[in-house]
Order: sequence, then structure tokens, then C-alpha cells
Amino acid sequence: MKEKLSIVKIGGNVIEDPKGLSHILELFSRMAGHKILVHGGGKKATEIGNKLGIGSKMINGRRITDAESLEVAIMVYGGLVSKKITAQLQALGCNALGMSGADGNAIQAHKRPVKEIDFGWVGDVDGVNSDGIKKLVDAGFTPIFCALTHDGKGQLFNTNADTIASELAIGLSSEFETTLYYCFEKKGVLRDVADENSVIKHINSEMYQTLLADGIIAHGMLPKMHNCFHALQNNVKQVCIGNSDMLQQTTSNFTTLTL
Amino acid sequence: MKEKLSIVKIGGNVIEDPKGLSHILELFSRMAGHKILVHGGGKKATEIGNKLGIGSKMINGRRITDAESLEVAIMVYGGLVSKKITAQLQALGCNALGMSGADGNAIQAHKRPVKEIDFGWVGDVDGVNSDGIKKLVDAGFTPIFCALTHDGKGQLFNTNADTIASELAIGLSSEFETTLYYCFEKKGVLRDVADENSVIKHINSEMYQTLLADGIIAHGMLPKMHNCFHALQNNVKQVCIGNSDMLQQTTSNFTTLTL
Repeated sequence: MKEKLSIVKIGGNVIEDPKGLSHILELFSRMAGHKILVHGGGKKATEIGNKLGIGSKMINGRRITDAESLEVAIMVYGGLVSKKITAQLQALGCNALGMSGADGNAIQAHKRPVKEIDFGWVGDVDGVNSDGIKKLVDAGFTPIFCALTHDGKGQLFNTNADTIASELAIGLSSEFETTLYYCFEKKGVLRDVADENSVIKHINSEMYQTLLADGIIAHGMLPKMHNCFHALQNNVKQVCIGNSDMLQQTTSNFTTLTL
Repeated sequence: MKEKLSIVKIGGNVIEDPKGLSHILELFSRMAGHKILVHGGGKKATEIGNKLGIGSKMINGRRITDAESLEVAIMVYGGLVSKKITAQLQALGCNALGMSGADGNAIQAHKRPVKEIDFGWVGDVDGVNSDGIKKLVDAGFTPIFCALTHDGKGQLFNTNADTIASELAIGLSSEFETTLYYCFEKKGVLRDVADENSVIKHINSEMYQTLLADGIIAHGMLPKMHNCFHALQNNVKQVCIGNSDMLQQTTSNFTTLTL
């Protein structure tokens, strides 16, 4: 039987707030079994970019990663955020190892093809080096991934952290029984966005289609849910969406997704 | 019999120059056997720091690492330089893993005690997690270390890259037969600083004392040589000092140090 592996993605908003981050890292460090953390970079990249005179580049409301923005992403996601989280987790007794997709050739990607928009140095994931990551996990390390991938030819890319989490979960399903946790500021997928207590406890494929048709899943939740079901359709056992309390396992007040 | 391990430290000047860096990474990738790279950050940290309005802080000509300078060091050494080197080495077929001393709890340190000067967030090394690093090396990874350590309580430190290299070599001597390579712009330790061809091929402890007494080892070479003999006195088998050609092993025109 395959061993279990939890892949926890924490969002940018959590990273902004040092107290919230400490809390979530403490909960993560206490989770039993093999685990991997995936983090975004939050607004720190924008803040550092602005200070360096590198503003956010947008085309039709979509963020573009030019060469300078990529350098900022590498510094902030791969350096500042990654190493601070790693040091904090080590203090909590979790043997963290801060990684990008280039480290150990963990996540390979290619530059997103130019259609209407050239997104710049944004990478679409080709695959995950599950064998290499398993070696790290088996040796007792807890990989901490930032939102960077590489093409194996020396080029780093910016890649959405939600996507990294789901691709890791999919890729590692060959080696482990994987559960993917998306941690964000809400308690789960809400039936009524204005009501924090309207958490939908369980969503399966059929219900997902209904929720889509009814417009209950909309806006920011659309790509997130798409990622979730993409993962489930590719051998990930379960996806959970909720706030940090979800990691305590003492509450069931979050959303669980299965096929 | 212990397996061999090469620890190669490349200096700041090498990192400045993209062509020179590519060349040295190619030579490093071709080195046979287990190996570890240690890199400084070069002037990029100063450049980024200046752009962010964080100038270098100096007291009595000594560099001080305040909280802001440490953030820049984490971004530049631990992020930009580390991840770019890692991606480049992966492209050369070397299974690089960019690390700070916090990753895998690899290098523990404490804040340098305040005597005449408070150096700020500078770490003096307490020890190396040789067991953890050996696991990575045995699993086929090539650790790439930047000049950052941690205290195990969540605090990162700036630590001199030469020191990191020698402490790694010392710590890993319990597991491996270690050779330490200091790569810099000169061909080796020179008898006459004005003559590039006056490389002293071999220095032992006795000769070291003579060279010190004669003032032939002076200025920047003093702490470097002190590090080297400290390493040799603590079970490192051999230390080599020279330029990148040294890594090709086709030349013997560099300085070898033994006890």
C-alpha cells in the first residue's frame, strides 16, 4: 500500500501576516506523516518590485512576467519567503528544505506559448520529478516549494502556486496516496459568499457541474476548482479547501472534494 | 574506506561575470565524484541594497548586517544567485540543490557576540549537520550552499562564504575524505603578488609559518589561509587554492595545502 502524502498550499494573504503565517506553520509542522508545503509570494514581490522601480506589468488585466519581474520573483519567492519559512519550520522541529522547481530538477516547465498575450517568463508545467522528490521525502526532508519552475536549459519561470501544488500532487500520486490542501482565508467553498458559515462540506464531480451551472462557483474560485478537479481526475485522492483550522483535523468545517 | 567529497568555493568576483560563471559551473559539473558548491553573493547584494535605499553599513571599515541588509542577503544569496546557479547546473546535467544553512538544518550558527563592534545578524558557525547533508549527497544531489546560516530558532544569519566552505569540509570529514577548493581570480598563493607566475605549488604547516613571518602571506590572503589551515587541522585532507583552471585537473599550476 502506498504511504500517505499531504501537499499543503498556503496563499499570499496568509504570508502577508507574520502572526497568521506563524500559526499556519505551527499547524503544518504538527501534521503527521509525509508532507510538502507550497507557498505563493504575496504582495512582498510587488512591494520590492516597486522599490526597485520595476512596476507590475499588466496587459488586458493579466500580469506579465518580464525579465526584471522574474528576477524579483526569484529573489522574493525563492529567497526571502522560502528561506524565512524554512528557518521558522526548522525552529518548529520540521526538517524543511526550501526549493524551487529547478532544485533537484523537481518541476520542469516550458515558456507559456504566445497567443493573444505574451505572458513573458511564465512557465506551464510539463512534469514533476516524483522519483527525486520521493528520495527527499523518504530521507526525512519536508520540501517547501515556491512558485518557480525551470526548463532544464537554465531558464527559471514564474508559475502559479496553485498549479504547482496540484501538479506536485498529481505527479507524486504514482509514489504516494496524495491529499491536496488549499489553505486560504475562507472556511471553504461557500454556498453564499456573504455567509462565512455556508461552507459546502463535500463536492463531487456531479455537484461541481451543478454549482458551476448555478453560478455558485465564480470569480477567483473558478480556476481554483478547475485545478482541484484536474488533480482528482489525475489520481489525487482528495482535495480539501479551507482556512488554517483545516490543518488541525479537529474540525470538519471545510470543503472536501472527491471525484 | 571513506568516499571522496570535493567542496568548491567560488568567489564573488566570479559571480559578477556571467561568462566566467558559466565557465566555472561547466568545470564544476564535470568534476567526478561527490561534490558541493559554496558561493558568495558578489556585488549584486550591494547593488540591490542600494536600489532599495539600504546602503552598506560600515563601522571601523567592517561591514555590519542590520535587519534590512540581512533581508537583501537572503533575497540575493539565497534567492537570485542560488536559484540561477542551480538552474544553470541542472542544464549541465548536475543535480544541483540550492540551499541555505537553514535548509535541512544544514549549518547551525549563533549571532556573533558583541565585543567592540556589533556586527548585527552575522552568524558564527556552531556545527554542520553532516548526517543530513550525507543523505542528500548519497541520494545523488549536489548541494549548492549560499552564505546563510541559522540558529535553529527561526533566525537566519549572514556568514562568510569562505568560512561556510571550510566548516562544511570539516564537518563532513567524519563521513567523507574531503578536499576543499578555493577558487578565485589568481592562479594560487603567489610568492610575488605582482607576478602571476610565482605560484607556490605546495604549502605545509612549517612553510606557512615561514611565509607568514616573511610577510608573503598578507592582506586578504591572511584570513583565507587561516581558514585553510584551520580546516586541515580538523581532518580536511587537502586544500587547493587557484583559479577556475584548477577544477580541470589538467593543470598542477595552483597551490595545494596540507598539514
